[in-house]
Amino acid sequence: MASILVVGPHPDDQELALGGAIALFAAQGHRVTLLDMTDGEPTPFGDPATRAKESAAAAAALSAPGNPITRIQLGLKNREVVHTLAARHAVAGVIRAVAADILFVPYFEDAHPDHLAVTRIAEDARFDAKLSKVNMPGDQGQPARWANRLYYYFATHLKIVAQPTFVIDTSAHTAQKRAALSAYYSQFEANPANRGIAERMAAQDLYFGSRINAAAGEPIFSREVLGVRVTGHDWTLPITG
Amino acid sequence: MASILVVGPHPDDQELALGGAIALFAAQGHRVTLLDMTDGEPTPFGDPATRAKESAAAAAALSAPGNPITRIQLGLKNREVVHTLAARHAVAGVIRAVAADILFVPYFEDAHPDHLAVTRIAEDARFDAKLSKVNMPGDQGQPARWANRLYYYFATHLKIVAQPTFVIDTSAHTAQKRAALSAYYSQFEANPANRGIAERMAAQDLYFGSRINAAAGEPIFSREVLGVRVTGHDWTLPITG
Amino acid sequence: MASILVVGPHPDDQELALGGAIALFAAQGHRVTLLDMTDGEPTPFGDPATRAKESAAAAAALSAPGNPITRIQLGLKNREVVHTLAARHAVAGVIRAVAADILFVPYFEDAHPDHLAVTRIAEDARFDAKLSKVNMPGDQGQPARWANRLYYYFATHLKIVAQPTFVIDTSAHTAQKRAALSAYYSQFEANPANRGIAERMAAQDLYFGSRINAAAGEPIFSREVLGVRVTGHDWTLPITG
Amino acid sequence: MASILVVGPHPDDQELALGGAIALFAAQGHRVTLLDMTDGEPTPFGDPATRAKESAAAAAALSAPGNPITRIQLGLKNREVVHTLAARHAVAGVIRAVAADILFVPYFEDAHPDHLAVTRIAEDARFDAKLSKVNMPGDQGQPARWANRLYYYFATHLKIVAQPTFVIDTSAHTAQKRAALSAYYSQFEANPANRGIAERMAAQDLYFGSRINAAAGEPIFSREVLGVRVTGHDWTLPITG
Amino acid sequence: MASILVVGPHPDDQELALGGAIALFAAQGHRVTLLDMTDGEPTPFGDPATRAKESAAAAAALSAPGNPITRIQLGLKNREVVHTLAARHAVAGVIRAVAADILFVPYFEDAHPDHLAVTRIAEDARFDAKLSKVNMPGDQGQPARWANRLYYYFATHLKIVAQPTFVIDTSAHTAQKRAALSAYYSQFEANPANRGIAERMAAQDLYFGSRINAAAGEPIFSREVLGVRVTGHDWTLPITG
Amino acid sequence: MASILVVGPHPDDQELALGGAIALFAAQGHRVTLLDMTDGEPTPFGDPATRAKESAAAAAALSAPGNPITRIQLGLKNREVVHTLAARHAVAGVIRAVAADILFVPYFEDAHPDHLAVTRIAEDARFDAKLSKVNMPGDQGQPARWANRLYYYFATHLKIVAQPTFVIDTSAHTAQKRAALSAYYSQFEANPANRGIAERMAAQDLYFGSRINAAAGEPIFSREVLGVRVTGHDWTLPITG
Repeated sequence: MASILVVGPHPDDQELALGGAIALFAAQGHRVTLLDMTDGEPTPFGDPATRAKESAAAAAALSAPGNPITRIQLGLKNREVVHTLAARHAVAGVIRAVAADILFVPYFEDAHPDHLAVTRIAEDARFDAKLSKVNMPGDQGQPARWANRLYYYFATHLKIVAQPTFVIDTSAHTAQKRAALSAYYSQFEANPANRGIAERMAAQDLYFGSRINAAAGEPIFSREVLGVRVTGHDWTLPITG
Repeated sequence: MASILVVGPHPDDQELALGGAIALFAAQGHRVTLLDMTDGEPTPFGDPATRAKESAAAAAALSAPGNPITRIQLGLKNREVVHTLAARHAVAGVIRAVAADILFVPYFEDAHPDHLAVTRIAEDARFDAKLSKVNMPGDQGQPARWANRLYYYFATHLKIVAQPTFVIDTSAHTAQKRAALSAYYSQFEANPANRGIAERMAAQDLYFGSRINAAAGEPIFSREVLGVRVTGHDWTLPITG
Repeated sequence: MASILVVGPHPDDQELALGGAIALFAAQGHRVTLLDMTDGEPTPFGDPATRAKESAAAAAALSAPGNPITRIQLGLKNREVVHTLAARHAVAGVIRAVAADILFVPYFEDAHPDHLAVTRIAEDARFDAKLSKVNMPGDQGQPARWANRLYYYFATHLKIVAQPTFVIDTSAHTAQKRAALSAYYSQFEANPANRGIAERMAAQDLYFGSRINAAAGEPIFSREVLGVRVTGHDWTLPITG
Repeated sequence: MASILVVGPHPDDQELALGGAIALFAAQGHRVTLLDMTDGEPTPFGDPATRAKESAAAAAALSAPGNPITRIQLGLKNREVVHTLAARHAVAGVIRAVAADILFVPYFEDAHPDHLAVTRIAEDARFDAKLSKVNMPGDQGQPARWANRLYYYFATHLKIVAQPTFVIDTSAHTAQKRAALSAYYSQFEANPANRGIAERMAAQDLYFGSRINAAAGEPIFSREVLGVRVTGHDWTLPITG
Repeated sequence: MASILVVGPHPDDQELALGGAIALFAAQGHRVTLLDMTDGEPTPFGDPATRAKESAAAAAALSAPGNPITRIQLGLKNREVVHTLAARHAVAGVIRAVAADILFVPYFEDAHPDHLAVTRIAEDARFDAKLSKVNMPGDQGQPARWANRLYYYFATHLKIVAQPTFVIDTSAHTAQKRAALSAYYSQFEANPANRGIAERMAAQDLYFGSRINAAAGEPIFSREVLGVRVTGHDWTLPITG
Repeated sequence: MASILVVGPHPDDQELALGGAIALFAAQGHRVTLLDMTDGEPTPFGDPATRAKESAAAAAALSAPGNPITRIQLGLKNREVVHTLAARHAVAGVIRAVAADILFVPYFEDAHPDHLAVTRIAEDARFDAKLSKVNMPGDQGQPARWANRLYYYFATHLKIVAQPTFVIDTSAHTAQKRAALSAYYSQFEANPANRGIAERMAAQDLYFGSRINAAAGEPIFSREVLGVRVTGHDWTLPITG
C-alpha cells in the first residue's frame, strides 16, 4: 500500500483531472490525501463555507468503504499563490506527515497562475522534505521523506492536448468521479458557463480510455523515466525503490 | 505468462540490446522466441556454422531451468534485407505460430539498413498477423493474432543517446547477459574492433539502471501510450488488453 | 471554393477521422472528392458489393444539397498497398483531374501497413502531379497541378494521442458524421468488436472540440508552417498561395 | 475588429519582432495597443526623453490613417523587471481597460531577464484579468475580461531559430516596419554594434515570408491548439470564441 | 584534410543548400566531390546538355585555386529515384572510391520524392560501404570505408523552418555561392517562378548567419550526437574518429 | 585561451557532472573558475570546514601544472537559494571579474530547488553582466562583459536520460575526475547511500564516451544553435564571436 498525496490548487482540480484514479487508489487500499493549497474562493457562485462542504462531499464520494480519503487545506490565498520558501516548507511538512510515496501535481504548462505556482512549490517541496537535519512546519515529528514518484496530472486552463506518459485505467470508477463533480454544485451547475463539464469530462475520460483499450482513463505525465519490473504476470511500475 | 517474440536482424542484436531482459522474461516463466531475420553472415571473423553455434549457445545462456528460449531463423539474406510483402507475411506467420503477445523490434532510427528494414517488416507484420480470412506462411495453422504490444529496443549503429519510455530492471541477469555476449566469440573477441563491447554494455546497463534506482537496466521505447492498472501493491502495465 | 481531395486507404477511414469536416467542406460549397485507394475488402463481415453500397451511402450522408461529394476508387489491392511509382502516378492523375487545392492523407505514424503506404504514395503524388512535360494516368488531360496544402488526418490504428496543429470546428455536422458511420453496417454494427465506435468517435470529437471551445472538432496535423493573412474580421489560413 | 494588446519589455522589442504585423493590424482596422513595461533606459546611446520620442514616432509609423496605435508605459524599472503580483495586476488592469481579445508577449525562452519576466507577468495577467469579484489597478472600471488568444512573438536575445506555429504575412507593411525601426536612432544607428539591424530584420522577414510563399512574414508561436472555422472562401482562425 | 561527399538529387540542390560551405571546404583544402544522383532533366526550361554545362560551371565557381571540385553523376532517372539495393551499392561504390570521411545528404523530411529516396539510399549506402568481404560497383578497387559523419542539409521543397544542429559560417563565400546559382540560368533566371531565388537564398544565409554572429551561414542537422575535443584554442568537431 | 566559469549550486556538483572536462580545460591552458553558490552544508555527514577542505582538494586534483583552478564561493544559503536580483548581480560581478567567455550552469530540469534557482540566477546574470552604465558587486572594476557561450551540464537529481547537444571527450582525464570525487569523503564514502557513486559516474562517462567513439565523455546541452568554422583540419566551435 502506498501513501499518495494529490496536491491541488483549489478544491475540485484534483477531482476534474484525477477523480477516477483517486477513487481507484482508495478502492485498492492505498492511503490517499488530498491537499488543497487554497480554499478556492472567491468564485462567481461560491463562498468558503459552501466550497468546504462540497469538497468534503467530493472526497467522501471518492472514498472506499473502510478507507476514507483525507482532505486537508494549506491555507494559501486563492488567486495569489506564489512560489516561496515558506510555501515549499509547508508542503514538505505534509509530505513528511503523511509519509508520501507518490505525489501528483498539476502539469507544468497552464494558464492559471495558481496552478503554475502550486506545481513549482510542490516540485521543490518534494526535495525539501528529504533534507536531513531540519524540521518542516506541520511534519508532526515525522522524519525526512523522499517521495519516490512525482507525476503530473492535467487540470490545465490552457487549451492544449495532453500528451501523457501513461494513462490510468479508471473504468471501474467513472460513477464515483461523476458523483464527486456533482458535489461541486456551486462551481459547475450553478455556473452557466460550466454546466456541461461533467459531460465533457466523461468524453475526455472515454477518449483517453480508448487509447489503452479501456472504458475510461486519465492521462499522466512523468518527467522521470519509468522503471519497470517484470514478473510472470503483468509487468509492474514499482511504487517504491 | 506471455509469449514474447524478439525480432532481430542478426544473431547477437537481441543479446546486446536486450540480453538482460530476455533472461528475465525466461526466468519469470514467459515463453520467449528469438527470431533472427538473417544468419548474420558474412562478417570479418565469422561464418554461418560458427555463428549458428554461437547463437544457440547465447540462447542457452539466457534460458531458465525448465524454460528454454526458442531461437528460429527466417532466412532472409544478410546485408540485403528489404521491406517486402513476402518478408512481412513470413514474420506474420511466426507471430501466429507462437501466438505472440509482445513484440520487440529494433528502434526505428539506425545506420544499418538491415535494422531499418527489419523494423518496418515487423511493424507491418504485426498487423498482417491479425488479418481475417487469410493464412500466413509458417503459421502452423494457428489463427489470426494481434500482438498487444510492440516495443522498440536500442541496437542502433547510430551514435545516438536512447530516450526510453521505460527501462526494464535487469539487475538479476547481468551475468547471463555477459555470458550470452561471450558466446559470440567470432563477433566480439575475435574482432579487435569489438573487443571492449562487453565492458561498454555493462557500463550502459549500469547507466540506464541508475536512471531507475537499479543496478542494471535496458531502455525501451513505445510509440503507443502505456496503459496502467492500479492494484494495492505495485501498478501494472498489463500484458494483455 | 477549393477542390479538396481526401485520400483514404479503405472506405470508412475518411469518415471516421474526418467525417464532420468533410460534411462541413461540402456544406460550405467546396468541391470534395473521396479517393479510396482500395475497396477495403475482405473484412470479417463485409464483401465488396456491400462495402460499395455502404461507402456510397456514407458519401451521400456527408454531401450537401446541390453539392454532392464525389467518391472514386483507385483499385489497389487491400492489405497489400505498396509504395510504388505506379501508385504514385495514379494518385497524381487524380490530383490533376480534380485540380486539387488541398490534400488530406492519413497521419504518418500508424500500425496499418496500408495506411503507411497510402501516406507515402500520396505525399509523393503531390509532387509528381506538378511535374512539367509529362502526363499522368487518369489525369483527363488536365495540366500539371500543385496542391497548395497537404494535411494529415488521424485514422491511426496505433494507440497514440493525436497532437494536432489545428482542430477543425465540426460542431454543425456531427449528425451527418454519425449517419455516415451508420452507413457502414458491415464494418461497425455487424462486428461485435467495433460496435461502440460511434460512441467513441463522438467522445473523441467532443474532446477535441473542447480544445477549441467548440462542441465538436477533428484534429489535423501539418508538417508545413501555416501562413496567416490578417483581415479586419477573422484571420485566415488561405487555401491558395 | 479585435482589440490587440502587444506587450513589450522595452520600446523597440515589439517593432523588431512584430512591426509588420502591428502595421497590418492597424491597417485592417483592429485596435492596437502597445504596452511598454519599462522605458527601456538606460542604454549606451539613449536617454528617457529621447527614447520616448522615438517610440512615439515608431508607433506613428505603424499606425493607419484614422486608426492610430495607442502606446502606453507601465513604468516598471528597466533591467529589473521581476515577476510579482503587483506587476501581474497592473497588466491585468490594462487588459481590462482595453478589453483585449488577443495578447502578444515575448517568447518564453530568452537571454534577457526582463523579457522572461515580462512573459511570465503577462501570462499570469491574462488569467488575473478574468477573475470575478475583484478590481485591477488601472482597469478604468472595465469588467473582467478573458483575452481569447495569447501568442508569442520572437524578440529573443538567445541565438535560436524560431519554430513558429504560424507566420503572419506582412508583405504589405515592410516599409512601415523599416520606418519604425529607423525611428529608434539612439538604439540602432547611434550604436555601432546594432547598425545593421534593419538589414538583418529585412532578411529575417524575407526568410519567414518564403516559408509561406509571401514576400515577408513574422513568426508566431502558440501553446494552445489552433481552432479553425471553415467557410466557402478562406479558412479562419477566429479571434473570438 | 577530409574527403567530403555531397550527395544531391539533382544538379543545383547542393548549391542552393550548401553552396557557401562547399566553397569553404574547397578553400580550406578539403577534397570535395559532388555526386548528382540524376541529371535533373527534364525541367520546364532545361535540357540535359544545358544542365550539364551549368552544373560544371557551378562546380568551377565553388572550386578553389589548385583544388578543383569533382562532380560526378550516378545516372539514376530523374523524377523516378527509388530506394533500391542497386542504388545503395552504386553510392557505396562512390563512397569507397573517394574514401569519404563526411557525407552530406538532403534532410529527411521533404516534398520531393527524389529527395526522400536519395536520402534513404545514401543513409544505407554509408553502411554498405563499410561491409567486409564484398565489392561495390564503381569502388575502383578501394577498400571498405566508413564515413565518420553523415550530415543533413536543407534543400527541402517542404515549407518548413530548418532546425539545425549547427550552422556553418560561410561568410567568406557568399559571392561564390551567388555565382554558382547564376550558373544555372535554365533553372532560375529562365524560369519566372524561380527568378527571385538568389535574393531569397541570400536572405536565408543572412538569417542563419545572424544566429551565429556571422554574416552568412548554412544550417546543418545531425542525428548523431556531436563529439567535441577541447584544445587551448577553439574547440573542435573532429572529422575523424 | 578562454575564461571558463563553472557555476555550481554546491561543491561537488561541478565535479560530478563536469570533472573530466574541467581537468581538460585546465590541461589545455584555459583559465577555469569554479563558483560555488553555497557552501553545500549541512549534509548528513558533512560540515562547513570539512566541505571546504574537500572542495579545495577536488579543485587541486583537477588543476594542471602551472594552471591552478580558482574556486570561489558566493555565500548564498544552502537549501534556500532563491532567484533574486541580488543573487543575479553577485554572479554578474563574478562574470565581469573573471572576464568569462563561457559559462557552464546546471541543466534546467531538476528535482533540487537549489539547482533550479542557480540556473535561473546564472542565466540572468549572463545578461546583467553585459549591461552598460552600471557596476556589479564584486566586479573588481572590470568592465561590462558578455559571455559568448552558456552551456548546461547535467548534475540533475531527476532520473532523466540526458539528451546532449554535444559530448566532450574527457578520455585523458578520468583519473583526475575520480580523484576529485574521492576528495569528497564526507559526501560519498562516508554516506552509505552514495558509496557507489564513483563507479556509477565512471559507467556514465564510459556510456557517453561510447556515443562519440571515445573512452569517456561528458554530455552538454546548448539552447543556442552552435556555430561552426571550418578549417583545413578539424572544424571548430569558436569560443569567441
